[in-house]
Amino acid sequence: MAPELASKSVKLSTDLPLDSGQVLSGVEIAYETYGELAADKSNAILICHALTMDQYVASDHPITGKPGWWAQSVGPGKVIDTDRYHVICANVIGSCMGSTGPASLASDGKPYGMRFPVITIRDMVRGLVGLLDGLSIERLHTVIGGSMGGMQALSLAANWPERVERVLAIATTARHSAQNIAFHEVGRQAIMADPNWHDGDYYREENSPDNGLAVARMAAHITYLSEEGLTEKFGRRLQDRDAKSFGFDADFQVESYLRYQGSGFTQRFDANSYLYITRAMDYFDLAEEHGGKLADAFAKSRARFCVISFDSDWLYPTAESRHIVHALNAAGAPVSFVELSAPFGHDSFLLDVPALDRVMKGFIDG
Amino acid sequence: MAPELASKSVKLSTDLPLDSGQVLSGVEIAYETYGELAADKSNAILICHALTMDQYVASDHPITGKPGWWAQSVGPGKVIDTDRYHVICANVIGSCMGSTGPASLASDGKPYGMRFPVITIRDMVRGLVGLLDGLSIERLHTVIGGSMGGMQALSLAANWPERVERVLAIATTARHSAQNIAFHEVGRQAIMADPNWHDGDYYREENSPDNGLAVARMAAHITYLSEEGLTEKFGRRLQDRDAKSFGFDADFQVESYLRYQGSGFTQRFDANSYLYITRAMDYFDLAEEHGGKLADAFAKSRARFCVISFDSDWLYPTAESRHIVHALNAAGAPVSFVELSAPFGHDSFLLDVPALDRVMKGFIDG
Repeated sequence: MAPELASKSVKLSTDLPLDSGQVLSGVEIAYETYGELAADKSNAILICHALTMDQYVASDHPITGKPGWWAQSVGPGKVIDTDRYHVICANVIGSCMGSTGPASLASDGKPYGMRFPVITIRDMVRGLVGLLDGLSIERLHTVIGGSMGGMQALSLAANWPERVERVLAIATTARHSAQNIAFHEVGRQAIMADPNWHDGDYYREENSPDNGLAVARMAAHITYLSEEGLTEKFGRRLQDRDAKSFGFDADFQVESYLRYQGSGFTQRFDANSYLYITRAMDYFDLAEEHGGKLADAFAKSRARFCVISFDSDWLYPTAESRHIVHALNAAGAPVSFVELSAPFGHDSFLLDVPALDRVMKGFIDG
Repeated sequence: MAPELASKSVKLSTDLPLDSGQVLSGVEIAYETYGELAADKSNAILICHALTMDQYVASDHPITGKPGWWAQSVGPGKVIDTDRYHVICANVIGSCMGSTGPASLASDGKPYGMRFPVITIRDMVRGLVGLLDGLSIERLHTVIGGSMGGMQALSLAANWPERVERVLAIATTARHSAQNIAFHEVGRQAIMADPNWHDGDYYREENSPDNGLAVARMAAHITYLSEEGLTEKFGRRLQDRDAKSFGFDADFQVESYLRYQGSGFTQRFDANSYLYITRAMDYFDLAEEHGGKLADAFAKSRARFCVISFDSDWLYPTAESRHIVHALNAAGAPVSFVELSAPFGHDSFLLDVPALDRVMKGFIDG
């Protein structure tokens, strides 16, 4: 967690009104850009990130040193071609990579902690629209997002319809299901049960609630992968040993992998941000915001839509994408929809799926 | 946790050799019986319990006061008719309701804690066979089990083929998958991350690792229910409020339900038992025990088998039951197999599924 790591940052010129009725002042949005903005500003693509991602979509992560989370798809000559497009990716509010979140300092000079207001997906998009205003970008060529990024893309299209021409929503949903909420609640309870959490006021303590955050990450991580993918990748294979230890070490490779995912995550993510962002996702119900009918959310949209799901994604299964597509159809919006076959589960949108590249490129460039 | 609550208990006359190579001495097995044992002892049915269940299959639970976990199916005139059969249900070793487990006293007069040996499903069955020996019951009319109980039923049939005539395995598997292991590992990490766990040595402390155990239970509980079942039962309905609180209370019914499941569980279950029993389940691979070929596990069996799965069970999906059935077919064992349609997910075996009753009754009485 290092809020000062963002390479670029703007301070929004106005306060951010939130869905809760509260107002967030002095909002900073940290972002990265790639490629040149055309003189007529017609080539701007906004990429919205998922729960635990950040603005480093195509540049090395400043903490882990790993390549950007979508570096395979974003860059010169790549699917999202930065020789043609001006790509913007910003850290959402509530997160911990430079945009205002629970680790930021409140007006009293102390970290917000749990005094940070509960935000929604629409509030995150308010922050992104504030950034676009700051960059004087009136209208996006395309907004793209997978998972929570897809929620933001849909929210932008629904609530700021004049700001976007193309909407690409991948492996996402228009509302969190009971099972989605349940998994997030397990993660939140794991964090809040960690005595180092201190009701969210741990920033000046020696220890952070890393154990709870790691458990939260482990539980969530299982939902990002498919049962088949886990079986193929790990099966019942043992980790660096020939026989079971008859103990509680990580005998199985899948245990070792999960522990690694959990502990690695705590190096780069803030537990309070995890609470706030999962809450925003659980609160997300795009239909509810628009009188209960999802089609009405898209009534004012003039954008073209592309919706992509993966057959092995059990977190946001294809039925959720179909639900979005039906609403877009009912709203008379132009939409193409494809369910791709990929073995990786929800995380397929981050992995090497050639068909995804082809569909994305066709839609963006078309 | 109250190891003295068992209404009946036997101390095994011999030490229990374990799969780990260790030996467990002075083993107590706590059990309940229902119905009269016939003079020729031909009517004994052994019911094997699941991970968090116990011997109170058809009698009120001594801690919670709730009816036995299968009281709807076991009793006079019921599907498992105690007017006809002598039903035995014993707490497995490693558990915490009277049979020897990590909360029991070791030879030094102190609770085992993590000094308790890691056990396997076959070790649990060794304990059950020891009980049958103690009761002078040579041969069971039927062994029945759902989930982990089904693993025990299959293990008994495979390893003590002369002890059983009919085997009824419900919503179970012959081996834990990578995903099964992953969910259990999350639970174990949640328990071990709880500072009240004290490396398992918490029995004389003021507090137990209840927070960790509750998180473990919550994560597991999601896997016991189907996505559809959760949606039907809770959807996105709010708990005792008209609008979202924009806070971290249990706004959604599903959150409230999960928290209740988690906290209620800690009243009646021991965290170390949860570690040991989940470990036993993760280690379970019936084929591996028999040279790698599941059919070979049943080579000596003369029993009739009935295998039942549920279409909404994603913990042990129908494919796992089919895998068992194919092995039984290959071994030449008589087997009937049915996938039942029920909306409740894995927990369907514990709930009101009339078709399950009919299939069970037909098999047991037939």
